[in-house]
Amino acid sequence: MTLDDLPTPCLILDIGVLKRNLAAMREAVARHPGLALRPHLKTAKSREVARLAAPDFGPITVSTLAEARYFAEGGWRDQIYAVGITPQKLDALAALNVAGATVKVITDDLDVARAIAAHPGPLAALVEVDVGEARGGVPHDSALLAAIADSLGPRLAGLMSHSGHSYAGRSIGDMARIAEEERRRILAAAESLRAAGHALPIISAGSSPTSLHARDMAGITETRAGVYMFGDLFQAEIGTHAMADIAVTVLASVIGRRPDRNTLLLDAGALALSKDRSTEATPRDFGFGLVLDLDGRPLPGEPIIRRAYQEHGEVQSAAPLPFDRLPIGARLRVAPNHTCLTAAAHERYHVVDGGREVIAAWGRVNHW
Amino acid sequence: MTLDDLPTPCLILDIGVLKRNLAAMREAVARHPGLALRPHLKTAKSREVARLAAPDFGPITVSTLAEARYFAEGGWRDQIYAVGITPQKLDALAALNVAGATVKVITDDLDVARAIAAHPGPLAALVEVDVGEARGGVPHDSALLAAIADSLGPRLAGLMSHSGHSYAGRSIGDMARIAEEERRRILAAAESLRAAGHALPIISAGSSPTSLHARDMAGITETRAGVYMFGDLFQAEIGTHAMADIAVTVLASVIGRRPDRNTLLLDAGALALSKDRSTEATPRDFGFGLVLDLDGRPLPGEPIIRRAYQEHGEVQSAAPLPFDRLPIGARLRVAPNHTCLTAAAHERYHVVDGGREVIAAWGRVNHW
Repeated sequence: MTLDDLPTPCLILDIGVLKRNLAAMREAVARHPGLALRPHLKTAKSREVARLAAPDFGPITVSTLAEARYFAEGGWRDQIYAVGITPQKLDALAALNVAGATVKVITDDLDVARAIAAHPGPLAALVEVDVGEARGGVPHDSALLAAIADSLGPRLAGLMSHSGHSYAGRSIGDMARIAEEERRRILAAAESLRAAGHALPIISAGSSPTSLHARDMAGITETRAGVYMFGDLFQAEIGTHAMADIAVTVLASVIGRRPDRNTLLLDAGALALSKDRSTEATPRDFGFGLVLDLDGRPLPGEPIIRRAYQEHGEVQSAAPLPFDRLPIGARLRVAPNHTCLTAAAHERYHVVDGGREVIAAWGRVNHW
Repeated sequence: MTLDDLPTPCLILDIGVLKRNLAAMREAVARHPGLALRPHLKTAKSREVARLAAPDFGPITVSTLAEARYFAEGGWRDQIYAVGITPQKLDALAALNVAGATVKVITDDLDVARAIAAHPGPLAALVEVDVGEARGGVPHDSALLAAIADSLGPRLAGLMSHSGHSYAGRSIGDMARIAEEERRRILAAAESLRAAGHALPIISAGSSPTSLHARDMAGITETRAGVYMFGDLFQAEIGTHAMADIAVTVLASVIGRRPDRNTLLLDAGALALSKDRSTEATPRDFGFGLVLDLDGRPLPGEPIIRRAYQEHGEVQSAAPLPFDRLPIGARLRVAPNHTCLTAAAHERYHVVDGGREVIAAWGRVNHW
């Protein structure tokens, strides 16, 4: 089977690019002695990708209960569920741990810490520290930190932080500065808790940009990153990786042609691409995605998806579109703004290795 | 089971609101003698909803091959697949028709018309006419129209148009004017083709706003509409329906609290809500959704989801949030900007009837 045989729209994963991205991250992490990589599977949501990204059932990060279950049952026992936990979800996680997993939860709330401590099942938790993202987490210098740690008692496994504000960076230097600020804050939090007698075996930090570009990770035991596996237009624009490192694209067919307006319609619209517009905030705005040829190469004028209807993507280009080569049914590929959201719109990956031959179909665990 | 027992995030459908919306559309269509309603199932993607919206296996519209198959196998034989068809998809549709369905395809392309005419299986097609939306369709006064109609020959079943530009309207008067312009153009196209001997039994027009608010539908045989079943914040803002008519919400749990910033985090983020920002263009901008209480009632200050991360939705409010009633794990509901995209993020509907009791779970046919 080749890319010409697949029903469109569908999701294409280039395994060669994926492996290159995984190697680049491994090398970046290996610069820091003693630092472990805990890949975040929220982007890939696939055991086949996890086999490459977290080989030998190494530690992973997940973002949903569905992922926690799917990966635990697949053999990945050492997990952090990196979204603030609610008391209602503890039973399900304790059940996974009874069955052999060690899924650690995160919290920044005193009542939840008490619920974790009081739960009859096996649980362990990290306290989430806000290192500047201003999303979740206890401020690193807050008195609440000690109260939560004390409440967790022996169930306290360490600290975690997310440097998602690195996405506001626009250069490798920005990423390095944000990584250093994250390190400074989470280590300050760790120092105060260790002085009070907490062991904190895990100090978990990260985001793809900071994992790749941090200069010093001393004191951090592990780094978490997810989007680096596949890359996307936004990450390319902010300097996390090169444009050629985008491993995931949407295969689409031409379903409309308007030479008088120099536009095409593709059968990849808002559902197949997502409505993410994150490149609106980057130097180059790719609309809802960059249109490539069937082999993933740029087209003249670098057309983009300017409008996204539910099942229609409207292509616009600065250069005349090659209508003679693009009859209805012709196939193109679209590189996504935000690969996590685009991938989540699809049930599986059709895997290629640089060419048009489809060498595998890999499943995903979507939903919650 | 009640709303307190469901895992979050998940999709809630209020069947009472749904039935009211269906009745309102039926009444609107009944104002026009001889006009049929062909509900578009692209929003609901559910046989249980279709039983109410297209009872007795009445005519429906679909937007994917997966929907065409699912509804044909469920008994809805009379379908229009209202996205420009490609030659590659004709075999699958002919197979459905061999099995008893009459799924009509649409095209605005001469080569595709020839492929439809030459296909060995049973097929029928409508020519798509551009009535001002400037997405798909042949201009109503184009010579291409006759060429396509002639090529289809006996497989020509009629004309169809989509007045999606009614979404740019901001009042009932706007909708009525756009409906009249659609009618004028598609009837002009029909007149020229009928003069050339084409019968055109179907003249299919529509969008939810124009189906509800058209003043005159003489000459139109059927109207298509989908989003009216569920409604959303965008449709409420442009005047299609009232705010109280939104039937679909996302049930979410509080997963973070920051009284110092007057913000909450919910476990409904970009995946559970979609990143649709259509209310950015309406009088009131709801961010990524309007936050309601567990019973679907407004909260003081009408908080919205201001930021949507993959699994986190950050709530902002003009009024102080009621933190005393919102511990971690407390439940809220979020009304969506664009119900078609939000619903597509979920596998099923949890059905309520005004209260908190969950009376059914209804499936959806997502993907392609």
